[in-house]
Amino acid sequence: MSAEEVAQAFVQHFYQTFDSNVDSLAGLFNDQSMLTFEGQQVQGSANIIAKLKSVGGVSHSVKTTDIQPSSNPNAIVIFVTGAIQIGGDNPLHFCEFFHLVGTAPGQYYVHNVVFRLNYGL
Amino acid sequence: MSAEEVAQAFVQHFYQTFDSNVDSLAGLFNDQSMLTFEGQQVQGSANIIAKLKSVGGVSHSVKTTDIQPSSNPNAIVIFVTGAIQIGGDNPLHFCEFFHLVGTAPGQYYVHNVVFRLNYGL
Repeated sequence: MSAEEVAQAFVQHFYQTFDSNVDSLAGLFNDQSMLTFEGQQVQGSANIIAKLKSVGGVSHSVKTTDIQPSSNPNAIVIFVTGAIQIGGDNPLHFCEFFHLVGTAPGQYYVHNVVFRLNYGL
Repeated sequence: MSAEEVAQAFVQHFYQTFDSNVDSLAGLFNDQSMLTFEGQQVQGSANIIAKLKSVGGVSHSVKTTDIQPSSNPNAIVIFVTGAIQIGGDNPLHFCEFFHLVGTAPGQYYVHNVVFRLNYGL
């Protein structure tokens, strides 16, 4: 798969799984992985899953996905914008960045992920 | 300077310069640098500056800045949200991601930058 295909498949998998069974995202992260969620930073797969679960029931709608090669030839930068509904409330804009790092051919983990809502001008 | 200090100084410099004299941003980029601006991808300092200039007169207001260490120990991930006024129009939400890569102590270039407006739920 090309980096573009990896990234598109990752984005589809990530949000579908987030919206249905957050625990199943654990394998995407390892001890080095870092999440910053609305300014709160946690590290490691277990802490990341706990943080994502604390958000409660969510539904994502992806609007744009931008992909670039990282400085490491085995890594991919992914930038997503869209809408998120939290607990059935009205949808809000979100943007999220992922840095996927390859560990073996076709195998990646999420090294960096940053999530922000975008509201209130 | 810590990575946090580098990143905060970079963000302040980048948007002040973008809003006043885009050409002065050229030194932040090199031939490897890649910009995706609203889905349009260009590479190299000259192409990036040309793309940024094509946006016209802008004014940024930064709301949040999130910083993480990248997978490369000499690189920093920066994620910004805020508001942008383009040509004096009403402000719009934007989000932007930068991947700064170190080339020497205290010296960085922008390897990746992705910009998206966030509007229209």
